[in-house]
Amino acid sequence: MNKVVDMDKSAVNPAIMGNPEKKIGQQTLIFPSRPVIASTATIAGPKEGEGKLGNRIDRLLEDNLDGQSSWEKTESSMLEWALREAAGKAGGLSTVEVILAGDLLNQLMATHFGIRNLGLPFLGLYGACSTFSMGLLLAGIIVDGGFANKVAIGVSSHHNTAERQYRFPTELGVQRPPVAQWTVTGAGAVVLAKTGEGPAITCATIGKIIDMGETDPNAMGPAMAPAAADTIAQHLLDTGRDPKYYDLIATGDLGTVGKTLLIAFLKDKGVDISHNYEDCGCMIYHKEQDVHAGASGCACSALVFCAEFYRLMRAKAMKRLLLVATGSLHSPTSYQQKETIPCIAHAISIEI
Amino acid sequence: MNKVVDMDKSAVNPAIMGNPEKKIGQQTLIFPSRPVIASTATIAGPKEGEGKLGNRIDRLLEDNLDGQSSWEKTESSMLEWALREAAGKAGGLSTVEVILAGDLLNQLMATHFGIRNLGLPFLGLYGACSTFSMGLLLAGIIVDGGFANKVAIGVSSHHNTAERQYRFPTELGVQRPPVAQWTVTGAGAVVLAKTGEGPAITCATIGKIIDMGETDPNAMGPAMAPAAADTIAQHLLDTGRDPKYYDLIATGDLGTVGKTLLIAFLKDKGVDISHNYEDCGCMIYHKEQDVHAGASGCACSALVFCAEFYRLMRAKAMKRLLLVATGSLHSPTSYQQKETIPCIAHAISIEI
Repeated sequence: MNKVVDMDKSAVNPAIMGNPEKKIGQQTLIFPSRPVIASTATIAGPKEGEGKLGNRIDRLLEDNLDGQSSWEKTESSMLEWALREAAGKAGGLSTVEVILAGDLLNQLMATHFGIRNLGLPFLGLYGACSTFSMGLLLAGIIVDGGFANKVAIGVSSHHNTAERQYRFPTELGVQRPPVAQWTVTGAGAVVLAKTGEGPAITCATIGKIIDMGETDPNAMGPAMAPAAADTIAQHLLDTGRDPKYYDLIATGDLGTVGKTLLIAFLKDKGVDISHNYEDCGCMIYHKEQDVHAGASGCACSALVFCAEFYRLMRAKAMKRLLLVATGSLHSPTSYQQKETIPCIAHAISIEI
Repeated sequence: MNKVVDMDKSAVNPAIMGNPEKKIGQQTLIFPSRPVIASTATIAGPKEGEGKLGNRIDRLLEDNLDGQSSWEKTESSMLEWALREAAGKAGGLSTVEVILAGDLLNQLMATHFGIRNLGLPFLGLYGACSTFSMGLLLAGIIVDGGFANKVAIGVSSHHNTAERQYRFPTELGVQRPPVAQWTVTGAGAVVLAKTGEGPAITCATIGKIIDMGETDPNAMGPAMAPAAADTIAQHLLDTGRDPKYYDLIATGDLGTVGKTLLIAFLKDKGVDISHNYEDCGCMIYHKEQDVHAGASGCACSALVFCAEFYRLMRAKAMKRLLLVATGSLHSPTSYQQKETIPCIAHAISIEI
């Protein structure tokens, strides 16, 4: 049998009167059939192409429009391309039974217009930049539950669509504060399959909304760090694992500021992740690219996973990964109404 | 499940491998364990209180603000109230393991601020007005798959938050065309449980995005009717059922115009639903309330199900219901960019 079976089932919330078969502890689901990430696909903009992962991305755009008449259309076409490419690598689009996808735009605009030509059953997710791990988690439930043999997950973001929606008209050229992160222009997609070879998802911890009262929508890393700390600590408690169980614990897009905070927050909880922790937001751009605190966006964790971690895992250079994509759940309206920023993080354990 | 056998099958094209255990036909999932809708809760505004279901709604607001400083806060507080109430009727909030929720606002604003005080694992869904059946469908997968014993599903909408986001500033008092529908102010929540008494969800058909080129965001019923027709026809094909199998087939919010179109579209496909079909959008307001083509919004199908169908099913006055919530997936940005309107519908079969 597989490793997740011997995890600690004693941490059950008595209020729940006993966990169901595929849950351990308070918030962690297990996937005994070990659904496999059969393929990945990545596409990104020119700035990402000049970054650290540039030569590992499947397709790079020459400019941020890629021949489309709006940035939104470009984002949609990137998502569609990534989903078609990932499906193509895993037996073809016609073998995919459900698509789970999401993005940062109002009413998932990029997703809906990217999906509509694919002619496949579709469920739309909104978890802001946590959407990639949320999608993997739900796909794991669908495949391990016996409801599909193949599920595709896709997410996208685009610097220009996000900037003008969340902050200021791009033409204004407003100066960005040092704590700000740069929304990744790109899309990533994976196919999760019941059978096959490759890294498998073995368990996942569903996050809770954590709002510590941060109000600056430029400082999303600090806002999201407490949610990441909560989910990681809960994951370790539920599974009885030490942080060292993982070759790498990777958050989605905390950036340089949030990354430092997360290490400190977890140290306060008695958890030391300082030796095997990295943030995907610090793995996209070079320091010289002047993005301030790092990368962000739904595509941030997706690109790093699909273009880098997945490759390392297939080569057995990395065997156990805890991917914790983080989402800042504010909206332009909530910011204008002077609300604080609710955040969430979902963790997914990927092993080979 | 024997993993060695699965590995041996990995060379076979899954398209030829056939459906997994819990799927029939192209798009329909089955829930053999028959998860039970253990409770429902409803809250709505004063206009809904004066409507057809007024005396069946759990709590009615005296005005559209309910003491809050913004309509968005009111919508959040309605969602929170409905989730707490539904959970309270089904063993208490602490027994709920996951919340699935969504609304119409940018970045699910109503949902995130409504959920953040509940302290429970949460997954955010965006399916516009189809979110209620999407939530039931995913909850069915989670419970039947053995990942949770209790899942809460909540959706909300608010006339004033939707109007100013999707159309015009409310102060402008823009005249509404006859085909327009009135967004329901309210929230509905249910608890789906592994065991217990009550109507059970038995199968569900995941919809595909259908875009027939409609461009008028005031005419969402006509835009959504083809998606409803596609999902209903697929459901009947997958299950081998005749429309008469159901006591009632109910769409979410097609309104009077979309309802007539759906009957005609399905007649063209050789399916006659004219004898046992109703639209939830035609069941909220009285004709004299001057809402033109009927009701719409995430809360539309949720209120009608929770306040009316659920009661009828518990009383065995209705035994088989196909609930088909419908979603118009446009955004203000897509409308401004002169895009057409992608739509979707998810069907859920509820039986007692």
